[in-house]
Amino acid sequence: MAKGASVSGFPEWLPQERVVEQTIIDTLRRIFQLHGFLGIETRAVETGASLLKKGETSKQIYLLSRLQDVGHESDTPLPQRLGLHFDLTVPLSRYVVEHSGELVFPFKRWQIQKVWRGERPQDGRFREFVQADIDVVGNGNLPSHYEVELPLVMLEALTALKPLGLPSATIHVNNRQLSEGFYRAIGLTDIEGVLREVDKLDKIGPHEVAQLLTSTCGATAEQAQACLDLATITTDDEKKLASQFTDLCARYHVDTDSSAYAMAMQGLQTVSMIISQARETDAAEGSVIADLAIARGLDYYTGSVYETSLEGAPELGSICSGGRYDNLARQGNHKYPGVGLSIGLSRLLSYLLSVRKARASRQSPSAVMVAVWNEDDRASSNRIASQLRSRGISTDVAPSAQKIGKQIRYASRLGIPYVWFPVDPNAQAGSDNTTQQVRNIITGQQETADPASWNPSSVYARQHIVFDKDGQQ
Amino acid sequence: MAKGASVSGFPEWLPQERVVEQTIIDTLRRIFQLHGFLGIETRAVETGASLLKKGETSKQIYLLSRLQDVGHESDTPLPQRLGLHFDLTVPLSRYVVEHSGELVFPFKRWQIQKVWRGERPQDGRFREFVQADIDVVGNGNLPSHYEVELPLVMLEALTALKPLGLPSATIHVNNRQLSEGFYRAIGLTDIEGVLREVDKLDKIGPHEVAQLLTSTCGATAEQAQACLDLATITTDDEKKLASQFTDLCARYHVDTDSSAYAMAMQGLQTVSMIISQARETDAAEGSVIADLAIARGLDYYTGSVYETSLEGAPELGSICSGGRYDNLARQGNHKYPGVGLSIGLSRLLSYLLSVRKARASRQSPSAVMVAVWNEDDRASSNRIASQLRSRGISTDVAPSAQKIGKQIRYASRLGIPYVWFPVDPNAQAGSDNTTQQVRNIITGQQETADPASWNPSSVYARQHIVFDKDGQQ
Repeated sequence: MAKGASVSGFPEWLPQERVVEQTIIDTLRRIFQLHGFLGIETRAVETGASLLKKGETSKQIYLLSRLQDVGHESDTPLPQRLGLHFDLTVPLSRYVVEHSGELVFPFKRWQIQKVWRGERPQDGRFREFVQADIDVVGNGNLPSHYEVELPLVMLEALTALKPLGLPSATIHVNNRQLSEGFYRAIGLTDIEGVLREVDKLDKIGPHEVAQLLTSTCGATAEQAQACLDLATITTDDEKKLASQFTDLCARYHVDTDSSAYAMAMQGLQTVSMIISQARETDAAEGSVIADLAIARGLDYYTGSVYETSLEGAPELGSICSGGRYDNLARQGNHKYPGVGLSIGLSRLLSYLLSVRKARASRQSPSAVMVAVWNEDDRASSNRIASQLRSRGISTDVAPSAQKIGKQIRYASRLGIPYVWFPVDPNAQAGSDNTTQQVRNIITGQQETADPASWNPSSVYARQHIVFDKDGQQ
Repeated sequence: MAKGASVSGFPEWLPQERVVEQTIIDTLRRIFQLHGFLGIETRAVETGASLLKKGETSKQIYLLSRLQDVGHESDTPLPQRLGLHFDLTVPLSRYVVEHSGELVFPFKRWQIQKVWRGERPQDGRFREFVQADIDVVGNGNLPSHYEVELPLVMLEALTALKPLGLPSATIHVNNRQLSEGFYRAIGLTDIEGVLREVDKLDKIGPHEVAQLLTSTCGATAEQAQACLDLATITTDDEKKLASQFTDLCARYHVDTDSSAYAMAMQGLQTVSMIISQARETDAAEGSVIADLAIARGLDYYTGSVYETSLEGAPELGSICSGGRYDNLARQGNHKYPGVGLSIGLSRLLSYLLSVRKARASRQSPSAVMVAVWNEDDRASSNRIASQLRSRGISTDVAPSAQKIGKQIRYASRLGIPYVWFPVDPNAQAGSDNTTQQVRNIITGQQETADPASWNPSSVYARQHIVFDKDGQQ
């Protein structure tokens, strides 16, 4: 980021960095559309009523007020005020209900947009950032195979970002029914509380979590230990998963005839389905593993939950998270169950820029800059540029008819590889400049050329992304 | 727009409409990059100090407050509060000054982003909309040839939108030096006032404008008439422009030795340069005309000013406006003069959707939906889909193994043209379903096919934009 953001939490990128962001967006969009997802955007604002309904982030909202209303903001009750959306899931739920008559269900949509969180300024966290989401929302019901397919689409998308410097991704899968079923089966009842404390494992460790489980969720020491034991199960093999879970249940004397156990087994089955099918999918170079420590803070998840880690970058936390939510979107008693994942695009971009030193190979999209011998001849230079552009070659024209050395320097500072010399009307017979010439200012190679047929060498034709292969972890 | 926006002024599009917006954005970006413009995004917020500095729109600002600060908003003085940007020019000026050490000047940038205006809700105007801007900003100085080139780039961009249903565009050009020079030469001094009243010509007509000029700007009846006469000059021929202006000056006894006249002539020369060079540019299918009625509301313009009309759509007003501003971006005494134009992308989109009935040829990006004979065989359908996707063919898979008729109906509702039938494990010998088959559900044609080599016919390969050729004006 260019010398840090001038307003804390609102990052802004230099042109060569912005190309990396744009390339990520283009790549994700391509993969999402290849899988048949429909693109939408939702408005940046939702009503207070909608924003304050759900989720851990509900406190970090930016509310809007018109300049004219300053001093009278409180005349409008909070639920009727407008605020900036803090994610793309709440807006999707609202959009789906609002347009249900015009959408085809299951509705598969991708959405890449900015979101805002009114974090405390001193936290150093992003307050404006881009998320890239895919979700499938059903009308009344939603087949569970989407819980398998969506993380695989995301894995394919993250794999497609490897040419930009992204390390291998691993998606960690758990299931709310598995967790809740197990917790209930060992006699716990404050399920939300237990999930909230287990979610802190990464940050505060098992000892502290066990203490919180006993002090705030009414767990005995043995129940707390059972929760910690469940969270240690991590495997990419569905047979091991089943046997480890069965062993755990036996160890804690779980009644395998109970409805709680049945619930857990249903969750287990979904997790198994996901990891076994992931193994068979060769598009996914990364991997998908069962990780029963995954809790996710948001309380609206009802089935699978996902988090994603990057190899060698644990400090980033999860860069792609989500899950299944059966009750978020509803119209009266009618439900629109959904499952989706969200890439924290800005966080990922920030990693690529700062750690992998990813950037555009050059500042300008142009492959060619046409020189200008003198201002009266600018029209000839413009005509050459038009000819090149009409054949899809991005072309700039020198800003002014300075000395040629200065013009070349302008091209060079922008990273434009070719400088085109029109015929110089004042050239002496026998000099190069009685014909059109193009020079590669990187290699020094110069040749006579015709703008109607010349092409840049493929290495220099387009901006692309370069990065530090070694990275600094 | 889907049944109107659910929050007034915040439009939202259905998937088939959003494809039109995305296609406009992609097309503009392609043209801008072909001309060597660098893409940037700026943060959605600026400080109050920055937003309240300039321009007619300064009253229509949305300020932000964190939910935690509700009730204490006024503790922070307005200049230090954050507000949503209302255009992309003010943010560009700030960005250029902030990053001047890292940019190459003249800095040519394109930027397509949402902006927000806190209009009164009942006005029925957009409060959230997308603008597409190009600007060139110099460091200290900026050659005037950019005042010629930028409207031509925009004309090329608008011409590239014709396949989406956009009518021919005409860019109307005037120049602040021409107007100011003439007003001063006939003895007027309240230049800002005169421009403000002349800007109302379209809305209230010449009679009312003349009255306002005499009542609020200290003009005599003759001076007011001179202002109206100037505003009637419209031509695409620089010779006519010069002779009509000379006649006008003679009629009002303008002193051709005055500095005011010299200023006017300098402006006239720039306008002449623009219209003559536009005629020579064949990329621009539209046209560029001198129109001395163009005043532009914003007070920061110092040279050329531009507005753009669409053939047969006067009710839209100007869909692409801008001008040269020499004093907007500055660092102490150092200036960064710029020239730029901005397309009102949402207004233009709204016109294409509602009047030209532009929409995606189909809802889904997918060319193929793979059927599923039964849920146990979903993996075979997924494998076929992966094969097609690996060759760039967007492919969906049936949501559930319903009766084939219902699966076809799902494809049909999404506009997916091909349904792929995997080998049916239960097919009887001799039936079609012992080989893979693909059916075009629009033409009914069906053939045996191999996912490793089959290609959709080019007509059906991709989503494209269709529109009502006749339009409803």
